[in-house]
Amino acid sequence: MVRVNDNFQKLPGSYLFSTIAKKVNEYQQANPEKGLIRLGIGDVTQPLAPAIIEALHKAVDEMADAKTFHGYAPDLGYEFLRNAIAKNDYADRGCDITADEIFVSDGAKCDSSNIQELFSADCKIAVCDPVYPVYVDSNVMAGRTGTYDQTTEMWSDIVYMPCTMENGFVPEFPKETPDLIYLCLPNNPTGTTVTKSQLQEWVDYANQSGAVIIYDGAYEAYITEKDVAHSIYECEGAKTCAMEIKSFSKNAGFTGVRLGYTVVPKELKRQDVSLHSMWARRHGTKFNGAPYIIQRAGEAVYSEAGKAQLKEQVAYYMKNASVIKTGLLEAGYTVFGGVNAPYIWLKTPKNMTSWEFFDYLLENANVVGTPGSGFGPSGEGYFRLTAFGSYENTVAALERIKKL
Amino acid sequence: MVRVNDNFQKLPGSYLFSTIAKKVNEYQQANPEKGLIRLGIGDVTQPLAPAIIEALHKAVDEMADAKTFHGYAPDLGYEFLRNAIAKNDYADRGCDITADEIFVSDGAKCDSSNIQELFSADCKIAVCDPVYPVYVDSNVMAGRTGTYDQTTEMWSDIVYMPCTMENGFVPEFPKETPDLIYLCLPNNPTGTTVTKSQLQEWVDYANQSGAVIIYDGAYEAYITEKDVAHSIYECEGAKTCAMEIKSFSKNAGFTGVRLGYTVVPKELKRQDVSLHSMWARRHGTKFNGAPYIIQRAGEAVYSEAGKAQLKEQVAYYMKNASVIKTGLLEAGYTVFGGVNAPYIWLKTPKNMTSWEFFDYLLENANVVGTPGSGFGPSGEGYFRLTAFGSYENTVAALERIKKL
Repeated sequence: MVRVNDNFQKLPGSYLFSTIAKKVNEYQQANPEKGLIRLGIGDVTQPLAPAIIEALHKAVDEMADAKTFHGYAPDLGYEFLRNAIAKNDYADRGCDITADEIFVSDGAKCDSSNIQELFSADCKIAVCDPVYPVYVDSNVMAGRTGTYDQTTEMWSDIVYMPCTMENGFVPEFPKETPDLIYLCLPNNPTGTTVTKSQLQEWVDYANQSGAVIIYDGAYEAYITEKDVAHSIYECEGAKTCAMEIKSFSKNAGFTGVRLGYTVVPKELKRQDVSLHSMWARRHGTKFNGAPYIIQRAGEAVYSEAGKAQLKEQVAYYMKNASVIKTGLLEAGYTVFGGVNAPYIWLKTPKNMTSWEFFDYLLENANVVGTPGSGFGPSGEGYFRLTAFGSYENTVAALERIKKL
Repeated sequence: MVRVNDNFQKLPGSYLFSTIAKKVNEYQQANPEKGLIRLGIGDVTQPLAPAIIEALHKAVDEMADAKTFHGYAPDLGYEFLRNAIAKNDYADRGCDITADEIFVSDGAKCDSSNIQELFSADCKIAVCDPVYPVYVDSNVMAGRTGTYDQTTEMWSDIVYMPCTMENGFVPEFPKETPDLIYLCLPNNPTGTTVTKSQLQEWVDYANQSGAVIIYDGAYEAYITEKDVAHSIYECEGAKTCAMEIKSFSKNAGFTGVRLGYTVVPKELKRQDVSLHSMWARRHGTKFNGAPYIIQRAGEAVYSEAGKAQLKEQVAYYMKNASVIKTGLLEAGYTVFGGVNAPYIWLKTPKNMTSWEFFDYLLENANVVGTPGSGFGPSGEGYFRLTAFGSYENTVAALERIKKL
């Protein structure tokens, strides 16, 4: 009799956003007359930029002709895309990353959940708390996380790095040295980030301890402050301790298009084993490339027209962030984020728990947000709103919240 | 200091098709004047069918307008696609599979390598030998396969089920009862398959022993014989012992488009745990859906126009299979497959090893095939040619082979 992977049964509930979707659907079915505004899941709402649409149509036409048809993609991704990434996201920023250190994928969620496979079953992970739940959940499934304590909502074998009002949302070096450090900066869900010199300290810490940093830069395009790094490779020594995961979902509106990439520098080794070779082997064995037409869409993100159009798109969402932030402040809330990221992180009023505020907002303002506790125990008492709605909906949502 | 996953280091070489690609590129660079014909990797060459191109363009246009834009897809895939699959691939064949038992993915390679995550680290897998290398390699990475013996080319903890001339390429029940049984039928690489009543025996065996069958039906569209099942769910009792993985790569030419699905029946449980719930949790946590425009392309596969066009496409490749089979027989080879699958499996002449014949064919006929030993130890002394080339190239390749 085959036995199942018991680690799955340790997971306390369903994936956060699946839970929210279910709850919201139930509310909507019970109250079909209510017009909900969804500022919960970080899903974009603006159409793809014209340069991207054009590239997609062109690539589709290529697939209609045997002479220009594309079958299986190269393991690491097409060179046209990897070269565009290497130039725009790295060389132009003074980072020494080459095209063959870039692995194109179908998105940052897959990469950030699969990357742990490269490490031993007993390695100890550290996560910012609160953070994007995929890092913890994927390690739970892999059996690295001990047992879950229902009271503290913490796993016994995870190193939590609390990021709260009290420490300005900057993670501190943990007492126990971790093996694998997940950093999502600018952070999801708090919308806060660290300065380049603070990030440099983490790089130094990892190089000294032998830890590896998994750096998730999904929100990089939203950075507005000058002293914030757009890539961890802007820090000295990062190539010997860090992998970087990037997404096209937020900078180019690709949540439904699916494209991302991971950088694994060739210098990055542990026990004399190249992590680049390991990821290449994993990519070649367990993945078959992102679709050709989608990789052409990714290339268009870096065209002159694409860059100009996406700059406007990012500005559109950041205007929403400003509407949310200003509106909440006017309504008397304590608010963070929204400067270098499309997320607003608010302190729940009247000591409500995160889920109490979720229900309160859903039922009284018909606005959907995300409970902070869903991102980790230190998220309790906080709540996330995203700037990815339409401008009209965002303004309307804040009007409703101000009236509460 | 973080430790790497040692299991990766056990893998003897790079992924089979990566190795071949490297070898062929080196030969081509050294001999730029040689016109190679590639019948190696099972990659399609015909353009996408017009109905699919039309669906892609339409979906791209939807992504250009905020009113019809699609962000994150539902976890399991869009209902329009899951309904089309449930109707055409199951209900129309008398199989009782519902849309919510179907999980849409970015391809069968990912699914067949990820599915092992649902099972315990110590479960014992059984594979046909030879077979698609992903089943074994993904289990090696997960640490289920003991040590590799360079001489026998076998892993110590895998149950091998030899499929050779001697047993008519039909796997026999192993002496040691496995936990997880991978069946790829019609088989890649041998191009052979089993009858529906032989498959029923495997279903009965799994139900009696408590094993789970991972059924890879990637080549189902190429079945021509009446007594061969198009789905394992045509067998009685399969819903309590089998998952089925399907690909759009070969029936619709989607190798560069990336779409597949996996069926996990709700009745399928072990230790009272629903494997459907586990796969749903894995899908929701570690995957973010296939692109919207690609799922619309998948829907077009099941339209009346799509079905008619793809029937022609499959017939085109099967005509190639016939050219290869007939040509090889005329040239005196011993040949299998090509009747229910787009693969021809030949016995290497003059007791050449599979890799010797690979080099011989590359250098003397400038034809690229795949060495049988790359698919498992019992593949030694065999060689695979695919019918996925163009008709002209296939005819030319056989002319060259006949002249050797």
